[in-house]
Amino acid sequence: MRAAIFNGPRDIVVGERPDPSITEPTDAIVRVTLACVCGSDLWYYRGLSPHDLGAIGHEFIGIVEEVGADLRGIRPGDLVVTPFTYSDGTCVLCRAGWQSNCLHGGGYGNHGMDGGQGEAVRVPFADATLISVPGNGYSDETLRSILALSDVACTGHHAAVSAGVGPGMTVAVVGDGAVGLYAVLAARRLGAARIIALSRNPDRQAVAREFGATDIVAERGDEAIEAVREMTDGLGVEAALECVGTGESMATAFAIARSGSVVGAVGAPHGVQVPIDTVIFRNVGLRGGVAPARKYIPELLDDVLAGRINPGRVFDFETDLDHVVDGYIAMDERRAIKSLVRVGAG
Amino acid sequence: MRAAIFNGPRDIVVGERPDPSITEPTDAIVRVTLACVCGSDLWYYRGLSPHDLGAIGHEFIGIVEEVGADLRGIRPGDLVVTPFTYSDGTCVLCRAGWQSNCLHGGGYGNHGMDGGQGEAVRVPFADATLISVPGNGYSDETLRSILALSDVACTGHHAAVSAGVGPGMTVAVVGDGAVGLYAVLAARRLGAARIIALSRNPDRQAVAREFGATDIVAERGDEAIEAVREMTDGLGVEAALECVGTGESMATAFAIARSGSVVGAVGAPHGVQVPIDTVIFRNVGLRGGVAPARKYIPELLDDVLAGRINPGRVFDFETDLDHVVDGYIAMDERRAIKSLVRVGAG
Repeated sequence: MRAAIFNGPRDIVVGERPDPSITEPTDAIVRVTLACVCGSDLWYYRGLSPHDLGAIGHEFIGIVEEVGADLRGIRPGDLVVTPFTYSDGTCVLCRAGWQSNCLHGGGYGNHGMDGGQGEAVRVPFADATLISVPGNGYSDETLRSILALSDVACTGHHAAVSAGVGPGMTVAVVGDGAVGLYAVLAARRLGAARIIALSRNPDRQAVAREFGATDIVAERGDEAIEAVREMTDGLGVEAALECVGTGESMATAFAIARSGSVVGAVGAPHGVQVPIDTVIFRNVGLRGGVAPARKYIPELLDDVLAGRINPGRVFDFETDLDHVVDGYIAMDERRAIKSLVRVGAG
Repeated sequence: MRAAIFNGPRDIVVGERPDPSITEPTDAIVRVTLACVCGSDLWYYRGLSPHDLGAIGHEFIGIVEEVGADLRGIRPGDLVVTPFTYSDGTCVLCRAGWQSNCLHGGGYGNHGMDGGQGEAVRVPFADATLISVPGNGYSDETLRSILALSDVACTGHHAAVSAGVGPGMTVAVVGDGAVGLYAVLAARRLGAARIIALSRNPDRQAVAREFGATDIVAERGDEAIEAVREMTDGLGVEAALECVGTGESMATAFAIARSGSVVGAVGAPHGVQVPIDTVIFRNVGLRGGVAPARKYIPELLDDVLAGRINPGRVFDFETDLDHVVDGYIAMDERRAIKSLVRVGAG
């Protein structure tokens, strides 16, 4: 089959990889229809996070082509969305709702697993991992929104859930990448009354407003901190969502967090120092991490199918599998918020 | 009046300080009966945390001597316990239950405030700050337990609350100082089924067991981590309570915390690095800080008065105000878990 192949930093090509096949009776083979490029793929592309040579990509939707003998829920022909990690659904961590930390789970597109940026993927523990989308004949717009649930929408949601966002709260989102924009959407969905998006990019500001941001702070660093404090009577926000993963973004999130609140952090960490004095002397907590997307997808999918949320709005660059690298380049050059990759027929 | 005076590291004497007087109509003057030495006082004594020259000490109980004109709840003659921080009870942070971060609050025994290790203390916002103990004629044992509520018992409780300890859980406590021992007590009180205390000191192990520890781990560092993991099927504990504040203790707490759990941290931080990769890739959160003792004291006081908990058990060294420095030395040399100071008649 054809698939994106990571040959090293800034060297992603499309070539031949072995067709996947059922190796365990709980596997399914999914023929990928839509995939996309994640912010974490960009860390790999830039050489800032390690990645095995070979398959890449972990966000996709597709049609089930073949199922192992033990599968009961997932059937050939199903339209499915996958969380970006697979999980057995039965271990103590899965049962506790931490499927992204499954004792027997893992991710796609690394460590020998098929990548989402390819024609087909072997999905382990497919009954536990995949979510079948009911019905059929969905518009391209809806399919794009379903695709967004595979990772980034759930990751933004996890930032908001981790920070305890609830009705009436004042929230700030640090980061205007796709995850940050979804964090805005999640905060609104969870009932936040005021959502301050930190963004200096007019296009992203526009999406943030569409997603529910009530205020935009275009300043950065100390000036952004000062601005948010002024907007909140000097108190800071009741939930700060850290959606970047750099030292500066984490410092900003803690500085604008109200005493007693929690920073919800989902950015892949690069050079982050947690300001422990703020944790201890201002009682500002830190929660977040690799989102348990498997837990979140069903409820978010309901909202997508009912037209209540439109996370696919964030895809502003589109390419096909043969030109997948263009999707990386567009994001690397910040011309695109998030790149969609059309792989196969739906 | 006579009071302990901090003249610099390892230089605490007892001398004369001005008698406190009502300066605001919301003040009360409390004549101290019992005080004690806190682990954080020890940081000051050792020169490892900064402290103003002058008054010291922030844990005490006593009898109200005089009240400002605006006080309604607190009356002269009341036996009162104070949280180690005073708070106005009306600001947005107090109303949210974060009285230790009160916008107009502060601490005793530093920055010009009277210290608890002295004959009398001016208490600001006394109606909001102080808790009157109902009844009278309490035994010395009960009074010692009431004294413990002033800081350390609430601080240990805050570690457990911050980590989300609840019925049936498996908990580990890092640190066998007074706060760590109270964290054991709090975990049991909150219903934990299994409580692993990390302690290599036989006397402290004995108190930990009295307070509810079901298991003792005497190893340290990597060996302690290995031991706790083995005891928990490799998963780690559902709540790790960090009650020391050093880099090693925080690293241990994160290493033994189960994926998806929260480290409850209350140790005053000295050289702490939060392992951000564990936060993000294992979804281990961090909450805690300066305990909102004002919020916790009423419910813990009920349990003390009903004889359900006996936090005064931790005082294993006793002195009087004139010899307060002996209480510091006993703790500094780890001969005492916690030193009680008899100041005035009850």
